[in-house]
Formats: sequence, structure tokens, C-alpha cells
Amino acid sequence: MSPRGAFVVFEGGDGVGKSTQVALLAERLEAAGREVVTTFEPGGTPLGAVLRGLLLHGEGGEVGPRTEALLYAADKAEHLHQVVRPALGRGAVVVCDRYVDSMVAYQGAGRVLDGDEVERVARWATGDLRPDLTVLLDLDPEAGLGTLTDPDRLESAGLDFHTRARASFLALAGRDPDRYLVLPARRPRDELAGTVAARVEALLSERPGSLAP
Amino acid sequence: MSPRGAFVVFEGGDGVGKSTQVALLAERLEAAGREVVTTFEPGGTPLGAVLRGLLLHGEGGEVGPRTEALLYAADKAEHLHQVVRPALGRGAVVVCDRYVDSMVAYQGAGRVLDGDEVERVARWATGDLRPDLTVLLDLDPEAGLGTLTDPDRLESAGLDFHTRARASFLALAGRDPDRYLVLPARRPRDELAGTVAARVEALLSERPGSLAP
Repeated sequence: MSPRGAFVVFEGGDGVGKSTQVALLAERLEAAGREVVTTFEPGGTPLGAVLRGLLLHGEGGEVGPRTEALLYAADKAEHLHQVVRPALGRGAVVVCDRYVDSMVAYQGAGRVLDGDEVERVARWATGDLRPDLTVLLDLDPEAGLGTLTDPDRLESAGLDFHTRARASFLALAGRDPDRYLVLPARRPRDELAGTVAARVEALLSERPGSLAP
Repeated sequence: MSPRGAFVVFEGGDGVGKSTQVALLAERLEAAGREVVTTFEPGGTPLGAVLRGLLLHGEGGEVGPRTEALLYAADKAEHLHQVVRPALGRGAVVVCDRYVDSMVAYQGAGRVLDGDEVERVARWATGDLRPDLTVLLDLDPEAGLGTLTDPDRLESAGLDFHTRARASFLALAGRDPDRYLVLPARRPRDELAGTVAARVEALLSERPGSLAP
């Protein structure tokens, strides 16, 4: 049974404007009469909130790299099970802030884990449900550090990490270009929102079995 | 770098006497002057205790089958990282109550998840570290229900589940017989302990690089 709704994901680094674009897209779709579910990973379920606390706030202490990847994967599995699939099943448009690509980009960027293996775990967690469209808000991490006059060694390490993560996001987009919209994150937010909305509206009108608003 | 210690696992259904045999083996090895670390899954780390609470006591509510498997896998990854590998690295004998086989047997026995896929996730979680010896305490689940005169439908469903889990334990043992010792769980505990100790002592004396007590 293929879901009747549509699954749109925003990806990209921290601070590129994903949550703003999620909200703007949801607003437009709702104004057009569609049911929209906005959500996010990690943490979009009650269990996910517990796992997010363990992962992002160190509530369980420092954990190993495979542990961390598996906790992110468990968060994804539960989010799909509780939120995404039920919403798609009733025809809603699900707009999600981060998904599999973020896990692959960040868990792989630390160089401890193999990116392909991380992707396999993430795909298994989600039953390989792919977004209908992934909007990648792309930003050169150096641009974000451009205002620093003397980045110290820690910040340099951070830059390498974020540069690898960016390369991974772009590589994932390059592998499946029909399902991606790669946009320069520094464009004005309303211009970006307009481009995204046009693409999503085209997607919804073309999808077999899509619900007219 | 191959670990210098030895990794011994006890597997089998609930109530077959695994924890008793873990303790008896540890006692004998310690009496012979070896460093022994006894541990268990799920839950043998601080993070694992949190996850065990989520899994066994429903503290996060009912979770989906993939979520559950991934939380078990995260518990394993952390247990390997924090407890098992460090202990093996300093030459200890690690004696563990449940490991990968339990995850494969129980997560696969519910028939929702593919057993091979569960095994792949568990092997990735543990970096494919295999026990030097797995002692399977085998018991026909019907024997445990033998005293019930009128098992209701729920208990029958439970019996099917435990029968599939048992078959899975035996199949795993059958695939790699040199690393397994399959024993009938109903034999007297001291007889079982003697058989296990003899096998472990042989293993320790034969292992290249094993530490003399």
C-alpha cells in the first residue's frame, strides 16, 4: 500500500533556515486547504524526546559512536511509526525538519563510522521510506565562520566536520536528483519559500492518487 | 588488535538458569585466579539501564518493532563499548547473560521483523565481536507449560513465540558448532556447571595469547 499523502523533508546544516522554511511551506499548503503535519528529527515523539535528551544534552553521559547512531536510528523508527506513516496514510502532507540525510551526513562526518553502513541502518530504521521531495538548504560552512578573525584549533576541526557533512548532503542529492531541490540557503527567505512552494505544488498535482485540495 | 581475554555468553529462554550458571562459572574461574567480569544484556551500562527501563517497563509507552530492535541494538553497542571490549582488552574473562542470539531469537520470533535483518543490525551494533563460546541452555517451552491443565489462547500464542525463539537459538548454534555448547537446561545445576567449566578451561588453555592464571 503506497501512502496517499506527500513527504517533504528539509535538510542542511544548523542555522540555514530549515525551521523557517518548514513553517512557511506549511502556511502556504494550509492556506490552499491541505492537511499539513510539520514535524522534526530527532525528537518528534515522546520516546524521541527522551532519546533527544540522551543524545543532545548528554543525559546518559558520553556514548560510543555506534550507540549514538543506533539511538538516532531508533528515534527515526519511532517517528516513522507514530507520526509520518499515519499522517501519510490519511493523505496529509508531512513536512519534516531533518531525516535520513542528516543522520548519514553527521554520523558519517566524524570519520569513525562508515557512511554507507550508517545509511543502511537509517534505511532499515525507516523501512526505506524515501521522501517525495528533499529540499537541501545548502551553505558553505566557511561562510558561517567568515566573520571570525582568528579561528582557534577547535573551530578549525569544527569546520572540517561541517565541510564533510555538507559534502555528504550534496552527494546524497546528486545520487537522486529528481527527488531533491538544492537551494542556496543565503537567498532571501521569501524567494526560497516561493521556489519550494512551486515545486511542492507541482509534485502534489502530478502525484497519482493525490487529493485535490 | 584481537582481544586477549575470553568472551563467554549464556543464552536460552527465561528461567532456564542462565544467571545461576554465570555465577557458578565466575566463581570457579576466580578461584583459579582469573579476572572475571560478569555482565548482562540488556542493561549492563548506565545508558543501558535507561534503555532497559524503556524496553521492559514501558516507560516510554509502547514502541514500534523496529524501534524496539534498535534500542536493543543501542544497548548492545554501548555495552560492548563500555564493558566488554575494555575488559577483554586487559585480559579478563567476560561472562555475559544474553547477547546477540537473544536479540535475534526474540526480535525475530514476533514474525514482524526479518530475523536476518535483525541479526545484521545486532552484528553492526557489536562490531561483529563474536563470543569465544556460547553456552545455550536449551529447554522445550512446552515443558515449562506442562503443569497448566487448560492453557488459554494467550498462553498458546506465547508458546508459539517461545517455540520459534527456541528454534532460532538452536539454528544459530547449528551454524557455528565449534563456538557453541548446547546443554539440556533441566540437568542438575552442578553437573551443568562442571561441563561448562571444563569447556571454558580447555578454551582458555588452548587460546593463543591466553594468560596463565
